[in-house]
Amino acid sequence: MDLHALTRELHQKNGSKIVMLVADGLGGLPMTAGGKTELETAKTPNLDALASRGVQGASIPVAPGISPGSGPGHLGLFGYDPIKYVIGRGALEATGIGFAMQPGDVAARGNFCTLDTEGKISDRRAGRIASEESAPLAIRLREVKIPGVEIFVEPVKEHRFVVVFRGAGLEGNVKDTDPQAVGAFPLKPVAVDAGSAKTAAIAAEFVAQATKLLAGEKKANGLTLRGFSGRPDLPTYEEVYGLKAAAIAVYPMYKGLAQLVGMKIVGKAQTLKEQVQILTDEWNNYDFFFLHFKYTDSTGEDGNFDAKVKRIEELDAVMPAIENLKPDVLIVTGDHSTPSYLKSHSWHPVPTLLVSDCCRPDGNTSFGESSSIRGGLGQFEAKYLMALALSNAGRMGKYGA
Amino acid sequence: MDLHALTRELHQKNGSKIVMLVADGLGGLPMTAGGKTELETAKTPNLDALASRGVQGASIPVAPGISPGSGPGHLGLFGYDPIKYVIGRGALEATGIGFAMQPGDVAARGNFCTLDTEGKISDRRAGRIASEESAPLAIRLREVKIPGVEIFVEPVKEHRFVVVFRGAGLEGNVKDTDPQAVGAFPLKPVAVDAGSAKTAAIAAEFVAQATKLLAGEKKANGLTLRGFSGRPDLPTYEEVYGLKAAAIAVYPMYKGLAQLVGMKIVGKAQTLKEQVQILTDEWNNYDFFFLHFKYTDSTGEDGNFDAKVKRIEELDAVMPAIENLKPDVLIVTGDHSTPSYLKSHSWHPVPTLLVSDCCRPDGNTSFGESSSIRGGLGQFEAKYLMALALSNAGRMGKYGA
Repeated sequence: MDLHALTRELHQKNGSKIVMLVADGLGGLPMTAGGKTELETAKTPNLDALASRGVQGASIPVAPGISPGSGPGHLGLFGYDPIKYVIGRGALEATGIGFAMQPGDVAARGNFCTLDTEGKISDRRAGRIASEESAPLAIRLREVKIPGVEIFVEPVKEHRFVVVFRGAGLEGNVKDTDPQAVGAFPLKPVAVDAGSAKTAAIAAEFVAQATKLLAGEKKANGLTLRGFSGRPDLPTYEEVYGLKAAAIAVYPMYKGLAQLVGMKIVGKAQTLKEQVQILTDEWNNYDFFFLHFKYTDSTGEDGNFDAKVKRIEELDAVMPAIENLKPDVLIVTGDHSTPSYLKSHSWHPVPTLLVSDCCRPDGNTSFGESSSIRGGLGQFEAKYLMALALSNAGRMGKYGA
Repeated sequence: MDLHALTRELHQKNGSKIVMLVADGLGGLPMTAGGKTELETAKTPNLDALASRGVQGASIPVAPGISPGSGPGHLGLFGYDPIKYVIGRGALEATGIGFAMQPGDVAARGNFCTLDTEGKISDRRAGRIASEESAPLAIRLREVKIPGVEIFVEPVKEHRFVVVFRGAGLEGNVKDTDPQAVGAFPLKPVAVDAGSAKTAAIAAEFVAQATKLLAGEKKANGLTLRGFSGRPDLPTYEEVYGLKAAAIAVYPMYKGLAQLVGMKIVGKAQTLKEQVQILTDEWNNYDFFFLHFKYTDSTGEDGNFDAKVKRIEELDAVMPAIENLKPDVLIVTGDHSTPSYLKSHSWHPVPTLLVSDCCRPDGNTSFGESSSIRGGLGQFEAKYLMALALSNAGRMGKYGA
């Protein structure tokens, strides 16, 4: 089902405000049998009070049993079917470092590698070269010049970099040059379709010039390119929901994802308190606000249960300031679970809370994993959350007469 | 997923009886924080006793966050995917006044409007002309004669009427003639495809003759046509479920919707008691009975919480008479929610109760919104209800060996 076919047709505008607070990796697990999750352990008087007024559910980011990355996790929350809309690895990598891809650009993820005297790969990650060593090399690659195409090279971490080709007639359907094995030559970039032939030729020339520029390097004397991809073609929030949307995020990845759906990046917050201040300052300028809180995920990834609990309490503490703005719809959710127990993203449904004057309260009096599965939203695919948000905000007309 | 592909293959016949009692707009909301819904407020000893024996669920009419009209709401309950099967506005309007469209007919919704001396629209609804004034004008339009086509004009309410064209080679893909603005001329009917060219030409001629017939009227001296549509092509209950089905409804809209899926309209009930009497009288003649109760919706639309509570109690009072017939499967549900708080159809899931000798009871002891979300059917799309009904009636074979 194409939910956007419905929201495009049915959305209507009014003066209401929607806030979606995304605590990255919010859902968790107990560390020991019979224990509580991070969210259930945290003291969250403000979220619990909201749970009493609101409706809860357990949101499934993609499908049961599927653990999403940040891209699909956020696309789902934004109402974009994460199976239908795929962000290529190159485009996600570029987005993640804050590079604003333009339509027609093609991005690829680069890996520095070590080549032996024959030119075969002896280490696919250039000995996990440190970022301090690899960044100057990535910047050196900006010396590559190819007529008729603009080339951007940006360092990422360790052996990784991003390259973006900009020019007429470029498409992203080019195969990886990483042979996924040591003792093999890097592959030639091969176009999968006619529209990508020019990209493949440019990539080959880029690799040739880059390899010359890297000659003599001990670790990183070669490179491979993966995940060629164009800018994903996502309709904007304005198109599909009629919403003027703002993103208030600290990290480039989430700003980038928000930008891909047409949100305006506002402010330069470094802390949650600053994010809430920006929300307050921008309150009259937008209909929809996406606030991203990273640290519930990173503490989970670290396996640091107590730190994740603290971060959830930090989040709870700012809720009154958000409530003071009197949003018509307030949503607290996560893009996926990141249980400290697993130290990774997981497939577990995400506790999700929606508060509006016309949500149907479900008798829950606390916010958490156990409450969420007994909530009035049931278990639902995250992609439906935006339709619920719009309806609760009085922004959706009736389907059919 | 095409559920009918399964039910067509798997259904089997037996002597069982299924009753689906649809309380229109059944679901509701509390009027104040911490309060109860209409259904939870009503004294419903009979429904509560059924809830103890039965299984409950929260049915989602179309998709989370989508508020359906009566058409999609009922199609879902009848097991017809309301996204796949769309009833055009003209066809629904004709259906709603009890006009039996035949395959090949094209219906359009007509609006009387006021034209200024130049012929531009000065009021799109003819000053919201009263039905008593507009009905004779609609009947006057029956004087339009076009060779080779039969034309039916039926008054609706206020500025509305329905026109149906019947003849060979008519298709419904014609654009609206309503410019959706005052100070503009009515548009010409434009065919969107070749198959609808004849319809567009006939519609243009109809408008020309009709405008002459209306000349001199103060308010309603013009007309626009909207929602051109053929009779929706729905497979019948007999085809997809092997059920001989009867509809016992008071209002034309619901009789019409039932007719579209091949149900037989039985009786001429004006009250719920009369409906139950007809159910009793016809008990041996059909396998499936659709009973429609309107007033839970209309009281909700009026925002009259207390009146809706009373109507629910009226419904509860007839349950023993229905139970006395010993249906093998008894379903009580709604086509959508109509909370008095919102005074409109809404997206909230609908409390749904199914009782059979082989349903799996879920520990609920009352029927209501809160119980339904903790019910054994969980939250489910309404389109699955018919498969559940058939299985509970022993009317479905096994899928695969």
